[in-house]
Amino acid sequence: MGGDYDEMWRGLGLDLPAHERLLELLGGYYREVYLSQADRPRAMAYLDAVMADIHGGRVRELQAARAEGRKVVGTFCVFVPEELVLAAGAACVGLCAGAEVGFAEAERLLPRNTCPLVKSFFGFRLARLCPFMAACDLLVGETTCDGKKKAYELLADLAPTYVMEVPQAKRSADRALFREEVRRLAEALEALTGRRITAEGLARAVRLVNRRRRALQRLARLRGADPAPISGRDALLVNQVAFYDDPERFTGAVEALCDELEARVAAGRGVAPAGTPRLLVAGAPMAVPNWKVPHVVEGAGAVIVGEESCIGERHTRDLVDEAAADLDALLDALVDRYLRIDCACFTPNDDRLDHVVEMVRRTRADGVVHFALQFCQPYAIEAARVRDRLDREGIPMLRIETDYSMEDVDALATRIEAFVETLG
Amino acid sequence: MGGDYDEMWRGLGLDLPAHERLLELLGGYYREVYLSQADRPRAMAYLDAVMADIHGGRVRELQAARAEGRKVVGTFCVFVPEELVLAAGAACVGLCAGAEVGFAEAERLLPRNTCPLVKSFFGFRLARLCPFMAACDLLVGETTCDGKKKAYELLADLAPTYVMEVPQAKRSADRALFREEVRRLAEALEALTGRRITAEGLARAVRLVNRRRRALQRLARLRGADPAPISGRDALLVNQVAFYDDPERFTGAVEALCDELEARVAAGRGVAPAGTPRLLVAGAPMAVPNWKVPHVVEGAGAVIVGEESCIGERHTRDLVDEAAADLDALLDALVDRYLRIDCACFTPNDDRLDHVVEMVRRTRADGVVHFALQFCQPYAIEAARVRDRLDREGIPMLRIETDYSMEDVDALATRIEAFVETLG
Ligand code: SF4
Ligand code: SF4
Ligand code: SF4
Ligand code: SF4
Repeated sequence: MGGDYDEMWRGLGLDLPAHERLLELLGGYYREVYLSQADRPRAMAYLDAVMADIHGGRVRELQAARAEGRKVVGTFCVFVPEELVLAAGAACVGLCAGAEVGFAEAERLLPRNTCPLVKSFFGFRLARLCPFMAACDLLVGETTCDGKKKAYELLADLAPTYVMEVPQAKRSADRALFREEVRRLAEALEALTGRRITAEGLARAVRLVNRRRRALQRLARLRGADPAPISGRDALLVNQVAFYDDPERFTGAVEALCDELEARVAAGRGVAPAGTPRLLVAGAPMAVPNWKVPHVVEGAGAVIVGEESCIGERHTRDLVDEAAADLDALLDALVDRYLRIDCACFTPNDDRLDHVVEMVRRTRADGVVHFALQFCQPYAIEAARVRDRLDREGIPMLRIETDYSMEDVDALATRIEAFVETLG
Repeated sequence: MGGDYDEMWRGLGLDLPAHERLLELLGGYYREVYLSQADRPRAMAYLDAVMADIHGGRVRELQAARAEGRKVVGTFCVFVPEELVLAAGAACVGLCAGAEVGFAEAERLLPRNTCPLVKSFFGFRLARLCPFMAACDLLVGETTCDGKKKAYELLADLAPTYVMEVPQAKRSADRALFREEVRRLAEALEALTGRRITAEGLARAVRLVNRRRRALQRLARLRGADPAPISGRDALLVNQVAFYDDPERFTGAVEALCDELEARVAAGRGVAPAGTPRLLVAGAPMAVPNWKVPHVVEGAGAVIVGEESCIGERHTRDLVDEAAADLDALLDALVDRYLRIDCACFTPNDDRLDHVVEMVRRTRADGVVHFALQFCQPYAIEAARVRDRLDREGIPMLRIETDYSMEDVDALATRIEAFVETLG
């Protein structure tokens, strides 16, 4: 991978030798988790290419855009409206990180008891290993959980950082607060790019992001077929790449993948025999390269048929209303759409319970693996409420709390295999 | 203690044998931490009596009030305006808990990685050991941190629970949200008690709570003297009892204590010789009977001269403006006062950094012990910012993260002794 990117990476301040080792590790892990799969859809070749070039091609595109005066904005959560970023003329990249990298550096600033997602984006920054973050002109955080909210205060010492407030409930005063936060972010983005957000520009961005959502919804629906036409690992990868690839090109690639899967479904062809135990994974996001649990689950003889997660349907379930005519109405439509997100940071968050059940029914899942990252209190505590609800619906659930290390893989495998066996 | 309370405790559903053991443990620990001190102010006898009767006398008062139709409201955080509770005709008790009790029960519902404060109030409830919580007609939670916010959802299955939203920043939209939350809480309290909150009633409650705050401010100021006229343990106890004692009676007791301390200061008399290293404790609240760190600190030859904490000055620093004439203006005054609270749940929270420095100067402290409860991300992460600021001011700081167990007492003592020695 990418000797010809060295100059770019050096210019972005990366630690080249450490970065080289990271890419090697990542490539090896990708081969193990992905390229070992049998009978993958041919259209996954696009994703393989993206991953093989993960810190190269897309970063070069962003750097080329920056050379022409475009700005790049990094985000860590699906609450930050990408439409606003695009309408202000900037590019948007998701910076959630899924590797145990730079943790020693991160733990000099953050408590050891911090969620690995937070430690990871901090670690990538401190260890100078993420060209995406280095290419950002502005990082936009949010107040979704304690760990992120407070970590952004420290991140602001390292890079230009802006924080958007996300309310904790969904009453009218919360909507008013979030509406004001959307306005404030729009202003900050205009200041960054020097471009006004117009009704036309925002409407175009809304349509573009909606198109990507519709393509990913189509993918989600196709997974309801038995046999499942695509593995959970591959579908997760598609949802992961959605956060940093060019939206237009990516949407085309997903549509091509869906065309192929549709033919597979029509032919009764799948990645595992009909009748293979089907699982929904529900909970916290799995950022690249956090493929640990899906790899274990599908290694245990089950197939994952849906992700009730921010890297999954929480990101794609809701569209922004495209009918809005003027800027104010468009901003209102954004607010309405984003406040439908059912993150565990809300209280109460009963919609999420309904969504989990709806997904189980639609994907014809036999059970749910509830996934929380270690030290993530919102999802770990909400797991008890998900369990209650699923119990009442007669849907089996296995509760997992893990981090980015590989130490617990055997223990996880044992628990997951036992769970899969009960699904018979 | 209290054989004559058995009937009341049984009526409140307590587990009597386990409760008896708890009181014995508590009594023994109190003797060790408190009654072993030399030359305590005589007026501490009131506090000793309150503690000796901790689950008895005050609970009986509350139960007597309930028998006459009064309601009792339990809270877990200084953001819930006690004035509203009083103005609605109810009594208010703080339910923060500081003992490792019922943790096994709590951990069946909550993740092990939950802050001990949260596990403790849950554990007290599940193990049926807290007569205060059992005497409450309504529990009022708030959305200050992830652990509490989500735990209240589960608590609502066990007891009548209401949740107030606290915003995460202090811009005008946050103020509007909190104003609406104050209105909503007032309505809920009126529904509970069947009594309207009037301007007169609220003004009276404001004056009452302000009087208690002024008495505690007076106590805080007296601790600026060298030699310190009162130990940190005793002062912490006063601040702890403030949360559940009758406000009128308690204020009188604090004033009497302050009169005595004033005489001590005039006579140059203290609990430790002049020149003893003086420490400020800053951070998360220490609820009864969490006296671990103060006991260790003062056992290490230092004297604690202030608590930058919710059980301390974060609870007493700010008064509500008494000039407001009508109900709306009074509610606005409440909002203004409560939004001055500098909890680490806010971002940014720079006021707190100023307050810590102000307290160090005013109490003439030689250094700061920053205290976070284990798994409390807001305070543990903010500690890095406190450290930065204190570094710049040339004020030494020791950072501690601990829970309610006694396992780390020796390790803490070693670190604290070493820190105290450097203060020389
Ligand atoms: S889980 Fe919540 S906080 Fe995390 S990315 Fe999703 S919406 Fe944001
Ligand atoms: S997984 Fe949980 S703790 Fe981690 S960033 Fe997301 S919401 Fe926060
Ligand atoms: S530390 Fe914050 S959340 Fe805890 S009691 Fe104080 S104000 Fe409330
Ligand atoms: S100490 Fe921290 S984690 Fe615990 S209840 Fe208070 S704010 Fe929440």
